[in-house]
Amino acid sequence: MQTTYTIADYLVDRLAECGIADLFGVPGDYNLQFLDHVIASPRLRWVGCANELNAAYAADGYARLNGAGALLTTYGVGELSALNGIAGSYAEFVPVLHIVGAPVTSCQQRGDLVHHTLGDGDFGHFYTMSQQITVASARLLASNACTEIDRVLREMLLQRRPAYLMLPADVAKAPASEPAAPLTPALGSVDDNALAAFTDAARDLLAPARRVSMLADFLAYRYGLAPMLQAWVSEQPLPHATMLMGKGLFNEQHPGFVGTYSGKASEEPARRAIEDADVTLCIGTRFTDTLTTGFSHQIAAEKSIELQPFAARVGRRWFSGVPMAKAAEALRGVASSLASGWEPVSPRTAVKAEPAGGALTQSSFWQTLQALLRPGDILLADQGTASFGAADLTLPEGAVLLVQPIWGSIGYTLPAAYGAQIARPGQRVVLIIGDGAAQLTIQEMGSMLRDGQKPVILLLNNDGYTVERAIHGPEQRYNDISAWNWTLLPQALSVDGQAQSWRVSQPVQLHEALERVVTPPQLTLIEVMLPKQDIPPLLRAITQALEARNCED
Amino acid sequence: MQTTYTIADYLVDRLAECGIADLFGVPGDYNLQFLDHVIASPRLRWVGCANELNAAYAADGYARLNGAGALLTTYGVGELSALNGIAGSYAEFVPVLHIVGAPVTSCQQRGDLVHHTLGDGDFGHFYTMSQQITVASARLLASNACTEIDRVLREMLLQRRPAYLMLPADVAKAPASEPAAPLTPALGSVDDNALAAFTDAARDLLAPARRVSMLADFLAYRYGLAPMLQAWVSEQPLPHATMLMGKGLFNEQHPGFVGTYSGKASEEPARRAIEDADVTLCIGTRFTDTLTTGFSHQIAAEKSIELQPFAARVGRRWFSGVPMAKAAEALRGVASSLASGWEPVSPRTAVKAEPAGGALTQSSFWQTLQALLRPGDILLADQGTASFGAADLTLPEGAVLLVQPIWGSIGYTLPAAYGAQIARPGQRVVLIIGDGAAQLTIQEMGSMLRDGQKPVILLLNNDGYTVERAIHGPEQRYNDISAWNWTLLPQALSVDGQAQSWRVSQPVQLHEALERVVTPPQLTLIEVMLPKQDIPPLLRAITQALEARNCED
Repeated sequence: MQTTYTIADYLVDRLAECGIADLFGVPGDYNLQFLDHVIASPRLRWVGCANELNAAYAADGYARLNGAGALLTTYGVGELSALNGIAGSYAEFVPVLHIVGAPVTSCQQRGDLVHHTLGDGDFGHFYTMSQQITVASARLLASNACTEIDRVLREMLLQRRPAYLMLPADVAKAPASEPAAPLTPALGSVDDNALAAFTDAARDLLAPARRVSMLADFLAYRYGLAPMLQAWVSEQPLPHATMLMGKGLFNEQHPGFVGTYSGKASEEPARRAIEDADVTLCIGTRFTDTLTTGFSHQIAAEKSIELQPFAARVGRRWFSGVPMAKAAEALRGVASSLASGWEPVSPRTAVKAEPAGGALTQSSFWQTLQALLRPGDILLADQGTASFGAADLTLPEGAVLLVQPIWGSIGYTLPAAYGAQIARPGQRVVLIIGDGAAQLTIQEMGSMLRDGQKPVILLLNNDGYTVERAIHGPEQRYNDISAWNWTLLPQALSVDGQAQSWRVSQPVQLHEALERVVTPPQLTLIEVMLPKQDIPPLLRAITQALEARNCED
Repeated sequence: MQTTYTIADYLVDRLAECGIADLFGVPGDYNLQFLDHVIASPRLRWVGCANELNAAYAADGYARLNGAGALLTTYGVGELSALNGIAGSYAEFVPVLHIVGAPVTSCQQRGDLVHHTLGDGDFGHFYTMSQQITVASARLLASNACTEIDRVLREMLLQRRPAYLMLPADVAKAPASEPAAPLTPALGSVDDNALAAFTDAARDLLAPARRVSMLADFLAYRYGLAPMLQAWVSEQPLPHATMLMGKGLFNEQHPGFVGTYSGKASEEPARRAIEDADVTLCIGTRFTDTLTTGFSHQIAAEKSIELQPFAARVGRRWFSGVPMAKAAEALRGVASSLASGWEPVSPRTAVKAEPAGGALTQSSFWQTLQALLRPGDILLADQGTASFGAADLTLPEGAVLLVQPIWGSIGYTLPAAYGAQIARPGQRVVLIIGDGAAQLTIQEMGSMLRDGQKPVILLLNNDGYTVERAIHGPEQRYNDISAWNWTLLPQALSVDGQAQSWRVSQPVQLHEALERVVTPPQLTLIEVMLPKQDIPPLLRAITQALEARNCED
């Protein structure tokens, strides 16, 4: 092990400064030089995954809870396998640094015909590909590496989206100096005049209002506004909701929380609170097809205020140079001066908790699960019946839900659950995933078992791609999958078997199983048998909207 | 099911014309409209895979044996997962058409914020990414689809590399006319003067030669020259070799076959025949680092003739406009007029076949396997100890070896074996793969079991990434993997268990197991226990060369 301070060490130190304590990835011959420095550092832990797509998903799950994450792959073969995961992080504003170990600079300059290339001497292909799905990227040279690392990391943290570094083996080993100053992440420029104008406009719109509600979503969470918004709604009796991606932003046990807003498929109290308000405060929202049941949301621009990462809107006027945190503080000030005249929140009805009789259905599954959620749970629900079913859960205090409804890559949550558990080792992870989805990324269950993780995995066995059946081709064989022996899998993916598996087909069985894993003694897989064509009502509404759009001419 | 002839039907018919009878992929909501037409057609069979990377690998394995292949994914999430597989097909000249089901044209034109996008209204990102790793691509419109499909397919067949079609759901359903004329693939333009000049130059170089040898490799196989080259070396007693990728091109039982050429790490008869010849005929060769033990090949330009897909070289002169097949025919004509003066081939020594005593080692593993290979076997050997160990096998007649040494993506061969078996249902598939590699793509074993395939899988358990250990960090924990219960896996990945599994640690056990699967009754997994640090001699030489290059400054 060499003792000279190197560019590899510089990168490790900067990652640590960003709060990144774990590096996900797969080793490959072009990244082993860098990996030696990772292993030698007490500040960054190496987390080897079974493949690169899974590693990217795990880094994403980690970053959603930790604020940022990092992924290491090898040139060509490794990095391209990870691209779907990185694109998902881009679409959903998750900052993940993708570090790619590359052939030495001299080899690239000569255009050598080495392995893991296209064989044409051009080492820029994959860098170019990654530029489409990252906000900053660099091909590091020994001469520019430290400044380029800083630039790329700053941009990643500012935009909360992925970035890319190509790190040749020789550059990793080149000598460097330790950082001279901390990496102060930029916050986005603030235009004080624009902020004042925004505040005035917001006051004008809000002054005559009697019914004001707040719809906050995932971008508020990503930009760190959760504590501030929670304090705000605790002070002021403001009806508030999130959309599916924002679940966990608020304490859903709070009397002012009205539910999950999904356009026309929302439960009625949430729909009324958001759509019928005199003014709706939209904080960190994006109205996509899957979040709004096919763009069925009814929130008129004239009656709303919207905060985005670097700009804010009142009615139809946009104010740029107004970062979300600044705008939210200003808005909270305005609200506190006016809120005494606002209508109070009406109390919500409690959720039923008794397990139903008969065979399990989507409805009784979610009811049973609801009753056994715990404060602080980290829930992950895969795109499909799992995520859209989870929309109607009322989360316990401190619980959070990870879903991926914009990018919507099935199989994402299994490795993301692995990464989430690494970010939060003390909390219970509950993964809800369909059989079709779990097949895409199953090998990461082996990493969970290797590391002694104890997640509760609810494997919804509905005999194929039920979400696709709902959209198109309910009985087509392309929506069938290979039948697996699910309860045997944890044993097959480890040698010492620190796992338990059950198959349940009745609500009482599920209830009993969940009661035994309030504090899970080991990894638990519960295979939940569900009818092939049974789908949650929200998903039914959404898939009808999606299929209607696929049939447009 | 609609009865109007559509663009989807046109595409299905053109694929069938290319000899593509099976379409690999994963369904997704943007490709279901096209899939309906695939299911309805008797000319194209749908082969659903567990994930998109595996589907791309399977299509590649299929295409290597079938001449061309096709893959269907959905927009964004699906297509990006497949890119590593497509890039491998590009690097190794395998024609695979990547068809991507996309949102309807009107949605793209409006820039809707729909799922599976980056959320920025730009539908060109992934098309742009795929352009780096394909030779032709098109975003299909109803108005141009038929001509664009033809253009893209022609270019794919000509260059023997992947191509890309973005097929929006509405375009798939749009009416079309059946093809007016067959899709005649272009052959590359022929310059008759250049061909004549090449022939003259070749005759001049060969006329004084006494020792002439032939080194043919994978590009000769890809461009369909195998039957012609086999006939040639049967007629003329020409010492001939392939490199690792070309194994299967010749009948290796033929007395003129001298072995596998790998630069300085070649077995001595092959090295001498190729390097010490007066003239070496290099047909469809690419000299990459892994194929030449770090560019250690010694074949002087002045003493060689080289044929590439569209150009040929004699000494230091290049002749363009000379397609490989034409140049090879011309060269064969020259050779037949001169060969009576060439030195005869010296006979080879036979390979030992007795199983060794004691515990299994790399050496005794390959010896035992050699004895039990059968004519017509389709061998696949994953990058690492498997592929470089396989270099020294002498293949039985009609056997072929699939490896991926240029792209070198570990895990490739397991799904490729699935695809290969679909291309050649009547032949025995023997897959040799390490434990680290198999973890990347294991779910496709479920597809093998679903379809009743009966491959023999030799799972080399050497406790981690042995090839990476050989390059760098032999005892570093980044080269460890999760320990799996391999022999239990086939049971876990199917419900009715048409599989058998054994663990062997001695040559006699391996021999016995292999004797029982001369005609495999079902899928057979043989876990072969090998020492952690034991690697085949060729791989030792190659990894030393690779690590030396990683240490360049």
